[in-house]
Amino acid sequence: MEENRLKRQIDFIMEVDRMKSVYRRTLLVDRSRRETDAEHSWHFALMALLLAEYAGPDVKPDRVIRMALVHDLVEIYAGDTFAYDGDGKKTQHAREQQAADRLFSRLPADQDSQLRALWEEFDAMETPDARFAAAIDRLQPFLNNCLTEGHTWKEGDVTSDQVRERLSVAQDAAPALWELSDSLIRECVEKGYLRPGEADRDRAES
Amino acid sequence: MEENRLKRQIDFIMEVDRMKSVYRRTLLVDRSRRETDAEHSWHFALMALLLAEYAGPDVKPDRVIRMALVHDLVEIYAGDTFAYDGDGKKTQHAREQQAADRLFSRLPADQDSQLRALWEEFDAMETPDARFAAAIDRLQPFLNNCLTEGHTWKEGDVTSDQVRERLSVAQDAAPALWELSDSLIRECVEKGYLRPGEADRDRAES
Repeated sequence: MEENRLKRQIDFIMEVDRMKSVYRRTLLVDRSRRETDAEHSWHFALMALLLAEYAGPDVKPDRVIRMALVHDLVEIYAGDTFAYDGDGKKTQHAREQQAADRLFSRLPADQDSQLRALWEEFDAMETPDARFAAAIDRLQPFLNNCLTEGHTWKEGDVTSDQVRERLSVAQDAAPALWELSDSLIRECVEKGYLRPGEADRDRAES
Repeated sequence: MEENRLKRQIDFIMEVDRMKSVYRRTLLVDRSRRETDAEHSWHFALMALLLAEYAGPDVKPDRVIRMALVHDLVEIYAGDTFAYDGDGKKTQHAREQQAADRLFSRLPADQDSQLRALWEEFDAMETPDARFAAAIDRLQPFLNNCLTEGHTWKEGDVTSDQVRERLSVAQDAAPALWELSDSLIRECVEKGYLRPGEADRDRAES
């Protein structure tokens, strides 16, 4: 019984090695290639550790770190969905639910429930932990984009309105990070890395 | 003052993007390329989360997860040292201390101390958290090697004695993981993935 438990855990651990072969849109800062889900998850977890002071007092950093570690696991079967891919977004929820059924059930029942619950909480973006997690999850590729001349924004013909909308979860979850993002968005528009949406066109005209 | 604090944190976060370009010896399970330090750190952290039940009662899983996230950061300046590289090992400590001075001092003083202390605790392998962390840090590439026909063992002409020695920290830190490793080592020797050291030659003869 106990042996079977450990065997299931190790099989799961080896299965999720695939996170190192799910490539996202985001370029590495050195521009050598796109980053993987495993790399993004590590970066997100470390950022949660370092930026926790900007979250509200009800946020538990170690739970956010755990969310970071598991938040993209379903993508080993469902694939990465680009944040600004409207069509992909429509089917994302169903694809990821199926992937979660398939993936987490490989674990012993208690850990299946534990990881599934953590992922669903993250995905629903309702609790303070999940909202702070969402802010960091979005801040990481945003910063990489700022340092790679807006590589994925240009590729996806994204506007500053879309980026601001996506980062806006930080407005209540981590106000200081929202202020930083908002000012970096303006900077990226000025540098020509990001196409101005209405808000930034209005600002330029006023 | 507060603005400068956040700026330093973000600069650090962008600097450590380099963890995605430090390639280790370990192959991905799908053999498409070597894994990066960022990927290894994520995998190690997730394994610590899933295998914490095999540690002693004095181990705090969330501290081990934090160690996993920061344990290889110094390698962005010091490079990865192959576990079985005798010459590299001789200079590793000095190279990594210099790298730590250079890297962690980019953070605000309190976080410089916090990350440095966590890394030094990990490196010294003396506390229960650090010993369990070391066991997981070593188990991860070991498992990848088992699934890639001993790729890096063959490359480095490593023997089963060396692998057993390296994994032996698990003997007291996580006995069930040590038993598993020991039996997988024998399996890898039998399959020809790993050159038998004295212990396995003796066993084969008896």
